[in-house]
Amino acid sequence: MTAPEVCFEDLPAGRRIALGSVVVDRDEMLAFNRRFDPQPFHVDEQAARDSLFGGLCASGWFTASLWMRCYVDGLLSRAAALGSPGGDEIAWPAPVFPGDRLDAALEIVAARVSASRPNLGLVTLVGTLTRGDDGADPVTVYRGRFTGMFGLRAPGGTASA
Amino acid sequence: MTAPEVCFEDLPAGRRIALGSVVVDRDEMLAFNRRFDPQPFHVDEQAARDSLFGGLCASGWFTASLWMRCYVDGLLSRAAALGSPGGDEIAWPAPVFPGDRLDAALEIVAARVSASRPNLGLVTLVGTLTRGDDGADPVTVYRGRFTGMFGLRAPGGTASA
Repeated sequence: MTAPEVCFEDLPAGRRIALGSVVVDRDEMLAFNRRFDPQPFHVDEQAARDSLFGGLCASGWFTASLWMRCYVDGLLSRAAALGSPGGDEIAWPAPVFPGDRLDAALEIVAARVSASRPNLGLVTLVGTLTRGDDGADPVTVYRGRFTGMFGLRAPGGTASA
Repeated sequence: MTAPEVCFEDLPAGRRIALGSVVVDRDEMLAFNRRFDPQPFHVDEQAARDSLFGGLCASGWFTASLWMRCYVDGLLSRAAALGSPGGDEIAWPAPVFPGDRLDAALEIVAARVSASRPNLGLVTLVGTLTRGDDGADPVTVYRGRFTGMFGLRAPGGTASA
């Protein structure tokens, strides 16, 4: 097994990483909504038009899952990633619609070695999905603040810029 | 259109609601993991056995989505539900495995009428998924604290027990 390219030491506070972009597929969105979040504004065209959202929109869990895939492809697949215990912010500040092109990113806001497990790094990161809106100001449609657990390249090491 | 059965007034702080249970389907879990969270411990049997988790386990987003479906079936489908702007806690304190039977619940921890929109109620709720573990103490595998937006039956009303 080869050593992962990205370890805790490579993820210092302040680092910002672009995670590519994703286009929201209408059929996949609807299938997800029907299975996991069948509220009228997520599954019924007419009810959605009559709702505050103005049209069929993504379940927030579909949106979060799209970000997660970008995070895996853009970072975790090359990293000594050990999962996540959770986070302290999840926000869907604007609805997501079929065909939306969303840019994924993350920013490291804190990084420390576990006190009890010196070979484990705890990284606090903020992940976002942003819609460009064709020349208008970008709109953040998803924001999540989580702890990621990462292995250290060298036990006792510290993250550095 | 008939009036929803459950409005803001029916969701006072302190109310606890059982949302039924769900069994984790291995094939569906794997399909979700492969699409949205293809980390080795979520998609590769051998890598999962060698990981901290000890076996293939659910993406946290699959677990959260399973809870969401229980929330829709157990409450939102009968409610004047208007979506959610997000929350301030999401936690996966223990891994979820295929075949797990999980009990879903929610507890209302706060409820208030929007200051700017008197026909909108803001409900803070904690949702959980708990595994019974066959006689052992129940294990919480998911916990999320969110704001839910609900319509009022009577504008200016207040939630009451």
